[in-house]
Amino acid sequence: MPGEVDRRGFLAAGVLLASVGGTPPASAAAPVETESEHMRAMMAPPPADAPKVGMLIYPKMVALDLIGPMTAFKIARFDIALVAKDSAPVSTDLGLPLAPTHRFDEAAKDLDVLFVPGGIMGTIDCMRDPEVLAFLADRGSRARWVTSVCTGGLVLAAAGLLKGFDATTHWAVADLLPLMGARHVDKRVVKDRNRMTGGGVTAGIDFALTLIGEMKGEEPARRVQLMIEYAPAPPFANGTPAQAGPERTQALRDSRGYMDEQGRQAALEAGRRLGVAI
Amino acid sequence: MPGEVDRRGFLAAGVLLASVGGTPPASAAAPVETESEHMRAMMAPPPADAPKVGMLIYPKMVALDLIGPMTAFKIARFDIALVAKDSAPVSTDLGLPLAPTHRFDEAAKDLDVLFVPGGIMGTIDCMRDPEVLAFLADRGSRARWVTSVCTGGLVLAAAGLLKGFDATTHWAVADLLPLMGARHVDKRVVKDRNRMTGGGVTAGIDFALTLIGEMKGEEPARRVQLMIEYAPAPPFANGTPAQAGPERTQALRDSRGYMDEQGRQAALEAGRRLGVAI
Repeated sequence: MPGEVDRRGFLAAGVLLASVGGTPPASAAAPVETESEHMRAMMAPPPADAPKVGMLIYPKMVALDLIGPMTAFKIARFDIALVAKDSAPVSTDLGLPLAPTHRFDEAAKDLDVLFVPGGIMGTIDCMRDPEVLAFLADRGSRARWVTSVCTGGLVLAAAGLLKGFDATTHWAVADLLPLMGARHVDKRVVKDRNRMTGGGVTAGIDFALTLIGEMKGEEPARRVQLMIEYAPAPPFANGTPAQAGPERTQALRDSRGYMDEQGRQAALEAGRRLGVAI
Repeated sequence: MPGEVDRRGFLAAGVLLASVGGTPPASAAAPVETESEHMRAMMAPPPADAPKVGMLIYPKMVALDLIGPMTAFKIARFDIALVAKDSAPVSTDLGLPLAPTHRFDEAAKDLDVLFVPGGIMGTIDCMRDPEVLAFLADRGSRARWVTSVCTGGLVLAAAGLLKGFDATTHWAVADLLPLMGARHVDKRVVKDRNRMTGGGVTAGIDFALTLIGEMKGEEPARRVQLMIEYAPAPPFANGTPAQAGPERTQALRDSRGYMDEQGRQAALEAGRRLGVAI
């Protein structure tokens, strides 16, 4: 369990820091908390009643799809597991490998949040992988919240978890959701009963704040937002096809042609398995 | 060089994917590009004239400070190096280790972009580490752009790279910039000559799009923005002290007391070294 070891190593580093740091120098300009008090809050494992979050990771995923929500959940002190088919680190779009903390057979049976990030060709592999789909269908059948960001929504849909639900995914593949029985709603974060799905990549931050708000209340979500200084100010208005206009949108679609077509094939296959009438 | 190996491994995986994927089935609904064409663009090393980006990584850093801009730079096909003091993976706030691709002594001498992410107590260690500061001062003296996100701005300042410049950093420690000779400007992304600094954590995405716009032009930056669907829609208006109001801001400041006070001490020490009159 490399992830588990890393986690323990990081906690140990925190403990070490707390024990060698000592108290602030007498010259400190203002009275401060003791270091141990601060470090305890920062480094301690989540409280026993923390929501259990199972985040799927898989080869060729998009790192930011995971890291955005994971950062928000971590500050909210949720209990996070990175779950994968086996113990090997998975590759990401950035070339940075991510180590799982749990294999499917080790993951908690009852999750408060099941989460699936997106990931270009990796998504399509997941949509066709019976082991991944069976794991998601099982945990998703009991999870308090079934969630995704970006093309992770296609994986949830392929597992049958969005049939009859409103949902969203990355704009470039949103038309594939109905092939698997979901209704596409053109919003950044879509909630339908206990399903919450986010749009492409950066929608993960809006998604996570929305979910924390639903689960823990508005004030804890606002606290996370202030901590990560989330008052976005994009230099251009170009984050959606509507903002970008048809020419820029088509140019980007053209560069994604093969991938999006493979996604369509995988969605049609999943739709047949799920008995969706097209 | 664990990072280098991982990078090569990921490229190799891409090549493998391209070679085993074959052509789309005859049942494909629409004509598509060949897989190799798509994969070549996705997996190929950056072009020879790609801007060289050196991103500092260090123990106890904030993963999202790096992953946001890195994702944007990667899509823009910049040539990215993760640079650290030694080859050991560094810890992050998420417990996910990050492996450097280059040690200081291996990093390119002339960078197009020098970048420093933030990281709570890790930032303070960097502000006091002569080896880190010497590396940044050297590369920063020649880099085309000297940049940071979040508390990374404090590290640039401690290295003397923001003396006499407008800059920003995480709101909670922005008052420390003047102790090191920088002028704090209360904006999400601050540009002054060849310095570009971003506010806390999530400002990294706005920063990266702004920098890509400056370096490559507006259209390439817009393309990245559409790819990562960056049309933010925060569920609350709580991303700055002004939005959050004094009570919520003070509550969060109180929980950061020790850390921010340690930052102040490190900033005062750096200011003395840099001959800043307070």
